[in-house]
Amino acid sequence: MTAPARSDAIAQPLARYSAWRRAGDWLLLSGVIAVDPARALIVKGYDDIPAEAQALLGRSHEFSTDWREGPILAQSWFVLDRIRSTVEAAGGRMDQVVRLVQYFRDLDHFPHYSRVRKLFFPGLPPASTVVEVSGMLPSPDILVEVEATVWLGPSDSAPLG
Amino acid sequence: MTAPARSDAIAQPLARYSAWRRAGDWLLLSGVIAVDPARALIVKGYDDIPAEAQALLGRSHEFSTDWREGPILAQSWFVLDRIRSTVEAAGGRMDQVVRLVQYFRDLDHFPHYSRVRKLFFPGLPPASTVVEVSGMLPSPDILVEVEATVWLGPSDSAPLG
Amino acid sequence: MTAPARSDAIAQPLARYSAWRRAGDWLLLSGVIAVDPARALIVKGYDDIPAEAQALLGRSHEFSTDWREGPILAQSWFVLDRIRSTVEAAGGRMDQVVRLVQYFRDLDHFPHYSRVRKLFFPGLPPASTVVEVSGMLPSPDILVEVEATVWLGPSDSAPLG
Amino acid sequence: MTAPARSDAIAQPLARYSAWRRAGDWLLLSGVIAVDPARALIVKGYDDIPAEAQALLGRSHEFSTDWREGPILAQSWFVLDRIRSTVEAAGGRMDQVVRLVQYFRDLDHFPHYSRVRKLFFPGLPPASTVVEVSGMLPSPDILVEVEATVWLGPSDSAPLG
Amino acid sequence: MTAPARSDAIAQPLARYSAWRRAGDWLLLSGVIAVDPARALIVKGYDDIPAEAQALLGRSHEFSTDWREGPILAQSWFVLDRIRSTVEAAGGRMDQVVRLVQYFRDLDHFPHYSRVRKLFFPGLPPASTVVEVSGMLPSPDILVEVEATVWLGPSDSAPLG
Amino acid sequence: MTAPARSDAIAQPLARYSAWRRAGDWLLLSGVIAVDPARALIVKGYDDIPAEAQALLGRSHEFSTDWREGPILAQSWFVLDRIRSTVEAAGGRMDQVVRLVQYFRDLDHFPHYSRVRKLFFPGLPPASTVVEVSGMLPSPDILVEVEATVWLGPSDSAPLG
Amino acid sequence: MTAPARSDAIAQPLARYSAWRRAGDWLLLSGVIAVDPARALIVKGYDDIPAEAQALLGRSHEFSTDWREGPILAQSWFVLDRIRSTVEAAGGRMDQVVRLVQYFRDLDHFPHYSRVRKLFFPGLPPASTVVEVSGMLPSPDILVEVEATVWLGPSDSAPLG
Amino acid sequence: MTAPARSDAIAQPLARYSAWRRAGDWLLLSGVIAVDPARALIVKGYDDIPAEAQALLGRSHEFSTDWREGPILAQSWFVLDRIRSTVEAAGGRMDQVVRLVQYFRDLDHFPHYSRVRKLFFPGLPPASTVVEVSGMLPSPDILVEVEATVWLGPSDSAPLG
Amino acid sequence: MTAPARSDAIAQPLARYSAWRRAGDWLLLSGVIAVDPARALIVKGYDDIPAEAQALLGRSHEFSTDWREGPILAQSWFVLDRIRSTVEAAGGRMDQVVRLVQYFRDLDHFPHYSRVRKLFFPGLPPASTVVEVSGMLPSPDILVEVEATVWLGPSDSAPLG
Amino acid sequence: MTAPARSDAIAQPLARYSAWRRAGDWLLLSGVIAVDPARALIVKGYDDIPAEAQALLGRSHEFSTDWREGPILAQSWFVLDRIRSTVEAAGGRMDQVVRLVQYFRDLDHFPHYSRVRKLFFPGLPPASTVVEVSGMLPSPDILVEVEATVWLGPSDSAPLG
Amino acid sequence: MTAPARSDAIAQPLARYSAWRRAGDWLLLSGVIAVDPARALIVKGYDDIPAEAQALLGRSHEFSTDWREGPILAQSWFVLDRIRSTVEAAGGRMDQVVRLVQYFRDLDHFPHYSRVRKLFFPGLPPASTVVEVSGMLPSPDILVEVEATVWLGPSDSAPLG
Amino acid sequence: MTAPARSDAIAQPLARYSAWRRAGDWLLLSGVIAVDPARALIVKGYDDIPAEAQALLGRSHEFSTDWREGPILAQSWFVLDRIRSTVEAAGGRMDQVVRLVQYFRDLDHFPHYSRVRKLFFPGLPPASTVVEVSGMLPSPDILVEVEATVWLGPSDSAPLG
Repeated sequence: MTAPARSDAIAQPLARYSAWRRAGDWLLLSGVIAVDPARALIVKGYDDIPAEAQALLGRSHEFSTDWREGPILAQSWFVLDRIRSTVEAAGGRMDQVVRLVQYFRDLDHFPHYSRVRKLFFPGLPPASTVVEVSGMLPSPDILVEVEATVWLGPSDSAPLG
Repeated sequence: MTAPARSDAIAQPLARYSAWRRAGDWLLLSGVIAVDPARALIVKGYDDIPAEAQALLGRSHEFSTDWREGPILAQSWFVLDRIRSTVEAAGGRMDQVVRLVQYFRDLDHFPHYSRVRKLFFPGLPPASTVVEVSGMLPSPDILVEVEATVWLGPSDSAPLG
Repeated sequence: MTAPARSDAIAQPLARYSAWRRAGDWLLLSGVIAVDPARALIVKGYDDIPAEAQALLGRSHEFSTDWREGPILAQSWFVLDRIRSTVEAAGGRMDQVVRLVQYFRDLDHFPHYSRVRKLFFPGLPPASTVVEVSGMLPSPDILVEVEATVWLGPSDSAPLG
Repeated sequence: MTAPARSDAIAQPLARYSAWRRAGDWLLLSGVIAVDPARALIVKGYDDIPAEAQALLGRSHEFSTDWREGPILAQSWFVLDRIRSTVEAAGGRMDQVVRLVQYFRDLDHFPHYSRVRKLFFPGLPPASTVVEVSGMLPSPDILVEVEATVWLGPSDSAPLG
Repeated sequence: MTAPARSDAIAQPLARYSAWRRAGDWLLLSGVIAVDPARALIVKGYDDIPAEAQALLGRSHEFSTDWREGPILAQSWFVLDRIRSTVEAAGGRMDQVVRLVQYFRDLDHFPHYSRVRKLFFPGLPPASTVVEVSGMLPSPDILVEVEATVWLGPSDSAPLG
Repeated sequence: MTAPARSDAIAQPLARYSAWRRAGDWLLLSGVIAVDPARALIVKGYDDIPAEAQALLGRSHEFSTDWREGPILAQSWFVLDRIRSTVEAAGGRMDQVVRLVQYFRDLDHFPHYSRVRKLFFPGLPPASTVVEVSGMLPSPDILVEVEATVWLGPSDSAPLG
Repeated sequence: MTAPARSDAIAQPLARYSAWRRAGDWLLLSGVIAVDPARALIVKGYDDIPAEAQALLGRSHEFSTDWREGPILAQSWFVLDRIRSTVEAAGGRMDQVVRLVQYFRDLDHFPHYSRVRKLFFPGLPPASTVVEVSGMLPSPDILVEVEATVWLGPSDSAPLG
Repeated sequence: MTAPARSDAIAQPLARYSAWRRAGDWLLLSGVIAVDPARALIVKGYDDIPAEAQALLGRSHEFSTDWREGPILAQSWFVLDRIRSTVEAAGGRMDQVVRLVQYFRDLDHFPHYSRVRKLFFPGLPPASTVVEVSGMLPSPDILVEVEATVWLGPSDSAPLG
Repeated sequence: MTAPARSDAIAQPLARYSAWRRAGDWLLLSGVIAVDPARALIVKGYDDIPAEAQALLGRSHEFSTDWREGPILAQSWFVLDRIRSTVEAAGGRMDQVVRLVQYFRDLDHFPHYSRVRKLFFPGLPPASTVVEVSGMLPSPDILVEVEATVWLGPSDSAPLG
Repeated sequence: MTAPARSDAIAQPLARYSAWRRAGDWLLLSGVIAVDPARALIVKGYDDIPAEAQALLGRSHEFSTDWREGPILAQSWFVLDRIRSTVEAAGGRMDQVVRLVQYFRDLDHFPHYSRVRKLFFPGLPPASTVVEVSGMLPSPDILVEVEATVWLGPSDSAPLG
Repeated sequence: MTAPARSDAIAQPLARYSAWRRAGDWLLLSGVIAVDPARALIVKGYDDIPAEAQALLGRSHEFSTDWREGPILAQSWFVLDRIRSTVEAAGGRMDQVVRLVQYFRDLDHFPHYSRVRKLFFPGLPPASTVVEVSGMLPSPDILVEVEATVWLGPSDSAPLG
Repeated sequence: MTAPARSDAIAQPLARYSAWRRAGDWLLLSGVIAVDPARALIVKGYDDIPAEAQALLGRSHEFSTDWREGPILAQSWFVLDRIRSTVEAAGGRMDQVVRLVQYFRDLDHFPHYSRVRKLFFPGLPPASTVVEVSGMLPSPDILVEVEATVWLGPSDSAPLG
């Protein structure tokens, strides 16, 4: 059984902190991880995300491949989708996300995450920092955490580099 | 013997960098750790912070418990207190701290830190990112480092999430 | 043989992301590492940076010393030089860099990096955060990554702390 | 969903051994761990103990904090509660427990356990030995094991030390 | 060649300590390991115990199986047999052994030990504590150590639990 | 400078537990470690015990030898001396100690401890169990912990084995 | 609850490969692991195999013993039963299995597997190769993988060796 | 610069052994790894295989992604292409490959390999065994080794399973 | 003292399996290791093989060199000699061995093994697969295991590659 | 507070051995480490050497840099200064030191040591051997040990190489 | 059974090298380890040295203590005794040994060695260097290696330092 | 391509030290490693030494064997050849080398080195010390370092041992 679609959900804090803060034309998000507080659930694989998302990510339905690739693909989708819904709830657009800091437990996961990220940033992508860390909250199951900074002011015009 | 109270101290850089920079309505702090440059001292436990702070943190005065819990509790208090005094010295308030990035050497320390943080943010808390890293300056005794971003402009109204 | 001088090069993204984004008076850079995309080359030592830079860093021309110190010194120079050229290309100055977040694979490298950083910030230095992480992209050869935030608005006046 | 209250349960053996042996005025208990044989369940967190117990232990209902602290707090409560019900079933009282040998997988858990233990021994506490071991039965999920020795004879009058 | 039967041997100390002490109706044994001081020998497999014991334990006479299972089975038999002969030499019976504390180097050995223990306690079994430790005397070849407490007074009537 | 003689001190608990409990003719001590609560001090070497004790243990006054051997010798003396003073304070004698359970962090320390133990038990020694564990409270500096059981009733007559 | 009997099931591939290939008088099977694709389930213990199989393997119904031994015994049975049903579906017999290559994650599991294998080969056993490897698909839960080669031609007459 | 196309190359032995042996209707290949003896080269990434192959594998031309994914993708292609050319040189077809034994250094590489393998077996795939081993010849750079068994006799008709 | 020559011995199984199976024109051997079941002995060095074999392998009679090289050289000879005698007992020749799968605990042993193998295959060598695994039966002393497949039918004519 | 200048001190043995031996025209020194027996002190950083030496070594007075670099720089100076004073006390000169064997715990310390060594050998330097070892006496704090051999006879004229 | 006395034996080389070389008034010995080439034996404990030596070293005849301490004590005696007999065979005296370089596998063995060394150097001791290394020839059983340099010329007069 | 013959090269220092020092009739060399300063090259295998040397060492031209054995064989040759040319440049002969101290990263390399050393010392060999260390300069690629001491005075007459 797969999870229901829930595209309106926004990132929720897991402790006493703000999921995001507005400061002038800026929106500063907390680091987002693949935890669904409504279901008290850590996203561990394809079965924890909606069927449409599974299809989007190219689920192979081969047991071994899905067991190996599923966790990072599902978490990548979940995290970026939460950022998207949070930004949109604040009246912003994904091309207004100007910086992402991305923490991984294993950088061999990066190519998978990178493919998912392109789906969310078809236009101007954000500046990006990537590092591998020893762990993230709440548990070792978390493979990626993404901290987004959003500029809601007049658009800039940075080239791709 | 415990350390004297020193609530007026602000965060001091340990190398050639600025403890903080003002940029428009923003205040950007360097990562703060529990080192007291005035005493050339790394905070290692309850005895390195003022008696009032020890009481606030609920020191048990049982040797084994204090030896195990004391370091992270004392460092958490010290770091957040330095951030507070720095923000106030710049004319700001703690509810204007809009983002904290928090680095830990061991995420099992998080619940202790989290209890201390609530004491410093009775009102609107900041957005928050937490990761576990391999080490911090100057030494392996450092258990937590906190980087604060402060918005001194007109207040926002973010819900808790 | 050493690399040609290339002081006009700016930081280039290694995947689909923006090397930097302009947001109002702000310039947000991606994390910069010592990779030269033009040459598809990871900077691994003195021989991968220009001769003038080698001299500036005090290359000893003793095989063992250079083998041990060269990698972090060359990467530190390369990364900060790329940040400099990027900031200047955007019409800014190094004293407008208000925050650096610096990731290391081994904090014993910090003193070397710190000496190089002073060369790039003779004036007001940025706020600074330093942590040791498990790894960075693209490979374990990367020893340091630096994420810069630049304020192009009216100057502030933070003391050194 | 949380577990039903079950204060009448006594410690049950997990293999062919006696949960306790009576010898004259003595009651010798086997080492007790947080396994509920009736439910074939290893206690892994707050959700495996009754709601009243969760409240007693101060469950924060913050996901990350509960994920980190919950296992040792819930196991500590479960183990000591089983000892209590076993002692009472034998006609004894908790202040007649004269010695506890306590095995931990990680001594950083001790402060948490120690707070729970105080709840069970408001009067004269037992003599106590604490060590950290490599593992316990049945599985690595077990964080603490407690072996109790009970004197049902005329009371002694040992001071606290 | 296998060892001669030696069912009259009792546990011997390996340093200056008592193999057992009598205290009123109690008999307290030292921790027993599979060392035969008479032969200055650590029991390492089937060939170090009597042929009858080998048969009792179901020796397979398949080289690989015996090499893997033999050490823990032979040590378990040796240790419990020494406890038995010591208890009987003191005029006691195995059902008067009221507590065993059992230390293992690898808890995957427990099922093997447990099968052997049942052979020695066909009647009322003792209370039991089991932990995995880092090592035992005299050498890493020791896989299990058992400390027995015996009540020679009037029998109790504890159920199996 | 060495510590003053303090032969009247008895073992003190480091948390809320009893240093010992009397039960009929029995005295059950908590596990004793080399911590002096009066001075809030962990015994780390010769300098932390009285000069007479140093001489008794044969301090070499050669820096390297004392640095390597001193910690276990000083802790062994301290722990056994605390047990002695506690037993005597209860009106007992060392030959009434009928069982010791001894925990080590490194069993290579055993020969050193064994020599010290002989000094404390010139007469009938106790039954003895020795295991190596992963750690003890309060800190990794603790090398040995000893739990003693004392029979104050009429003497037994166990041979040495 | 235990799994329903399913003796007609044959080994199923977990990715795009053939569960077996027929080549003249030969039947070549893929490596078989204890995964039930119909239930998307990795066999982790007794509860994942039919009750008759549990009885056949001598389940002890003691929690600790079953927790330790159950996984390898249940996987051994499942894997060999799948090989049997596959061979029989192709019109062969188990005594026509002429070679098994067996991969383990821990060779201490071999005696358990060996006892199960004898149940499946009461007649002429196959040639056999056994090695310990670092891992198998799909996950670290897999303890054993068996690759079978079957000769459906006229019988040979190899002795046991 | 990329390698020239060399589709006619067949697998070459790296020591004194046969690259393949013909036995009746069978072709038995040695284990094939991604080493090009003609160039004395270990295939380490995209640049070591022909440009057409790179395109076929979907090279991203993003430095970090290619650095992480390139080695296993390039080796998978090289190894299977060598097997193909060897089989064809012997007058066979890929659908006559009836068994593959595949060794990996890291099973997280399996999904990448699996996608490449599908390209080489559009028709009836072989039986397949996959394990993770500690290493392969000649060096730790080798990520995958594949041993193929080919049946050149009349075709079988195994279903996919 | 060295072992007697025993060139007529054939490979013996160490558990219930067949040392080899005949299937049509094929001979399939079990994996062979350097264990002599007749003497219940694992071959650990030169002294466990016949003097002629020692000479053939070039024993240096220098203690350190023989201690380091002896184990792999003696095991390589023993294993291949057992394969030879087994093949010959079945009426075959070494040039009819068409495939060897060779497992090592440390691939640095390969050059030593390779030199020994050449002595046994002066004519057409077999196809060969080599991997490094974590362990083999019965014990960690086993350094190499070889599985041979023999074709007794009409000879093939594979080139060396 | 820094240590007083003590340029007249010579290397002192830490156990029963000679700090140096004269043999004809030769002076053979024991390995020298950074321990000051007069103060029973291991040199751990800048604060343990005289202020002039700190200045000579370029102490940065930045907390993090000094914490990281100080230990090896201070020990290097201390060790070479002790060698110098010992040689001069014997009537020799530093250019008569003909060989140094240098042991390090971490060869990344070599460049720091090398810079200090040049200060002590402005003229003809000694022959030099450098290796990294696992440890030195008395403790893991020791980072470098230097063994010097001095020729007091007529000077040689070796070139720098 | 203990080894026969063999005080006339001199150090023997284990490979093609000289046990010692005479050069003018100097005698340079190879590194000596506790191997008896005559018996092809590595000294592993008390039983491998003469009974008089065992008594000299204070063998406790307690199994655990001897098992732990015996190896280093026996090797220390053996090595120094071999050096003594070699020096004396060359017409020298132990007080002419002017330098010892001593390699250990574990520096915790140093105090034991140091006590033995004093027995061999009652007069003027040699200069001494001590380091801990990763291993020595021929095997990991070797705990100490000593390289001696002897001056047979006119005596010097070095103080103890 | 192989390196040109360069038999006239002598050992060159890699930092500021003397490659050798002459002291009376003695020649003391620095530790020599396989680095060619003229080419700024670390010798990593056969291709880095002259073709004649490769032939002398018995290069197999089998890829896997050469990859495994080549590095230590090539470094051994290079190091000893540099020592030879240095000694000869000073007017000495190899049989005047009276002591070698040899450091290895892995003592399993010793037999390879030992064979090469015999080639350089056909006559009277030197005294020899061999230890395994953690590392050498400049990099982990260095497998062996040799420190030679040469006596140019009248010859001695030491036997082989």
